[in-house]
Amino acid sequence: MLHPNASSITSNKLYPRTCGVIAILTDFGLEDPYVATMKAIAIGICPEAKILDIVHTVSSFDIESAALILYMVYRYFPKGTVFVAIVDPGVGSSRRAIAIATQNYILIGPDNGVLMPAAKDDGIVETRLLENEYYFRKPISKSFHGRDIFMPVAAHIVCGAKFENLGRSIDKESLIEPDIGLGFLRIIDNCVQLKVVHVDKFGNLMLSTQFNKLKQLLDLNIGSTANIYSQERKFAAKVEETFSIAPKGTLVLYENSFGLAELAVNKGSAKDLLGISKGSMVTVCRS
Amino acid sequence: MLHPNASSITSNKLYPRTCGVIAILTDFGLEDPYVATMKAIAIGICPEAKILDIVHTVSSFDIESAALILYMVYRYFPKGTVFVAIVDPGVGSSRRAIAIATQNYILIGPDNGVLMPAAKDDGIVETRLLENEYYFRKPISKSFHGRDIFMPVAAHIVCGAKFENLGRSIDKESLIEPDIGLGFLRIIDNCVQLKVVHVDKFGNLMLSTQFNKLKQLLDLNIGSTANIYSQERKFAAKVEETFSIAPKGTLVLYENSFGLAELAVNKGSAKDLLGISKGSMVTVCRS
Amino acid sequence: MLHPNASSITSNKLYPRTCGVIAILTDFGLEDPYVATMKAIAIGICPEAKILDIVHTVSSFDIESAALILYMVYRYFPKGTVFVAIVDPGVGSSRRAIAIATQNYILIGPDNGVLMPAAKDDGIVETRLLENEYYFRKPISKSFHGRDIFMPVAAHIVCGAKFENLGRSIDKESLIEPDIGLGFLRIIDNCVQLKVVHVDKFGNLMLSTQFNKLKQLLDLNIGSTANIYSQERKFAAKVEETFSIAPKGTLVLYENSFGLAELAVNKGSAKDLLGISKGSMVTVCRS
Repeated sequence: MLHPNASSITSNKLYPRTCGVIAILTDFGLEDPYVATMKAIAIGICPEAKILDIVHTVSSFDIESAALILYMVYRYFPKGTVFVAIVDPGVGSSRRAIAIATQNYILIGPDNGVLMPAAKDDGIVETRLLENEYYFRKPISKSFHGRDIFMPVAAHIVCGAKFENLGRSIDKESLIEPDIGLGFLRIIDNCVQLKVVHVDKFGNLMLSTQFNKLKQLLDLNIGSTANIYSQERKFAAKVEETFSIAPKGTLVLYENSFGLAELAVNKGSAKDLLGISKGSMVTVCRS
Repeated sequence: MLHPNASSITSNKLYPRTCGVIAILTDFGLEDPYVATMKAIAIGICPEAKILDIVHTVSSFDIESAALILYMVYRYFPKGTVFVAIVDPGVGSSRRAIAIATQNYILIGPDNGVLMPAAKDDGIVETRLLENEYYFRKPISKSFHGRDIFMPVAAHIVCGAKFENLGRSIDKESLIEPDIGLGFLRIIDNCVQLKVVHVDKFGNLMLSTQFNKLKQLLDLNIGSTANIYSQERKFAAKVEETFSIAPKGTLVLYENSFGLAELAVNKGSAKDLLGISKGSMVTVCRS
Repeated sequence: MLHPNASSITSNKLYPRTCGVIAILTDFGLEDPYVATMKAIAIGICPEAKILDIVHTVSSFDIESAALILYMVYRYFPKGTVFVAIVDPGVGSSRRAIAIATQNYILIGPDNGVLMPAAKDDGIVETRLLENEYYFRKPISKSFHGRDIFMPVAAHIVCGAKFENLGRSIDKESLIEPDIGLGFLRIIDNCVQLKVVHVDKFGNLMLSTQFNKLKQLLDLNIGSTANIYSQERKFAAKVEETFSIAPKGTLVLYENSFGLAELAVNKGSAKDLLGISKGSMVTVCRS
């Protein structure tokens, strides 16, 4: 075990100063005491930590979905937020535990890709292994590193532990990257094929490209109609600034609040109308 | 954009002083990062704000249910709580964004009725449009005013922004009112017809009138039996002080913790027994 | 109503000092405003209380499940945490309302067993009835003591109320104890029969004994195989340090993060594979 101030692992890099906030994202669900256990450990270590839940209902083991959600949401948190993202089917195996300092944040979790889209988007300053057991809860279990490693490290950081004392610095090129589908776009004749990257509670279908890019590629205008092809069926979608402008029940193609192209039905569900789900392909054409 | 201290919109009214608490009620669900995004924005603006969740599982677009829940719960919060209620199918359309100062609270949300039952119950002091963009997050999206308008305004208020600087004062008579079913009561011969206004997790059926009013109208006594007619079927309900007093499996008519008449089955579900749901009618008669 | 400092009920016992944290566990679900109402009351009484949710999705009336969850999780909270556990089908009946001071914590709830496994495990110092109405919310309803009794008492305690002022001390032998299944173990020939005491979101089956005890009884080695008999079917389980070490889809018997024997399928669901649920029996044999 390394002393927390071991001088052997110093650094000249500039890490973000923490702001006291820990934001948690897991696939632990709402029915088991796992999330509460993590929070209990954190406030025991650092009572002044402010803990916010992102989402805990990610499908079990779905690293890509969690990575996408973290990517969508991280930018709205105050600078200096420490994120703990745990979708960790490899817990206890040889997968590495890491902390990534980015331009504005610190991200903690397994090296399985869950942190990467957010980290790369914000700009990775340095990545370190979590290997300084001084910051762990003991005994360290083989199946709950959220409680024993990730959350204790986050709490210690919020209460002043130095990033450079967590463990050895590693090359960011060695980090695992997931495919969260964003950016997928295939031009087919006069149409654009996109992937459904997220389906929200309202049945809105978030697509894999920026709305403005799609608009430009297909030369769409607000108020015009686009044809949506999905599973051999064709739907007409109004291109609008938002769904509420269209008559009830209308399929609308618009720029969602994250800048992405999205299909929604005003006071209805695009998911139900099109009968598709996350990962499905849709083709958008000018009508 | 108005300067936050623009003197053009002052007021002589007495607004409640905030207590640091923001309570949120939405239909955003627990699977998407929408609620976390709102909280992230709020603590960025006002780190000392204390944010409490009311409920986020309101059925999509169900303004009436959200209005009823807010009406039930608001009174238990400390004076000076700022409520943000967002069930907002009209986001981005011409529906107005408002803040209502009541005798004891500030309520923020769309002008679609979601705030009104609570606001009227507490006593409306003044209503203002949210039009001072100084308090908004920019750029302002067309589909997520919770993140860009409602929550930032709430956070600014908790951190000292003046109510009179939010925008122009508007007539409370112009505000939209929902029908949440409360107060519905029809006397039919020797019986009283009521509406099921809420069904809770236990299957308890909350009815549309005060228990004491029903008791008086039908001259019911604790310990007596009432007949419940629902969808052409008849059920005997014990009139009790609470459900736990009756034998297991018994249908009980009692005063719930909000003062309303309620049907419950001891260690069972009145919803399952009667086979009805929110919005259904029941007729209560003296046996 | 007793004065809060009534000298008639003093004590020489040493109670744990509170740390400002209230942790709540209920079967109130996530769809109704019950939990929010409790939190609202608490921060009204004691604004500096830090409130953490354990779980609110316990099956309605399932005292044993809640007791098990509290037992699993309480030990990870900072010393001085006040727990409020409300699975309370007997609310309003003659069941007693109690507070238990243990070596390190204070536990508040109905005397129906929900607090007992945790309280006994930590060591009961003293139990008192909640009968000092000075600490209650008034009027006291017959069906929501979480709002009117348990949570107000917890908030008052966090803000300085003395444990000995809550009500009369009662004999811990008089407290109701639930059967949460832990410790169930039957030796049958060369096998051990165990009970499934909890099924988590991943479909992991938590069994009724310590892993190390099972390992010793059956002389199991890490890397060996055990036979699992469930409902007349036989499954081979790898005995491993954790599930992630085995190939995808493999049934694994391992020590879970709470020290108990657990069955999991790597990136799958042991619940689905075995087709059993909470309360089921499994028999583990050396292969």
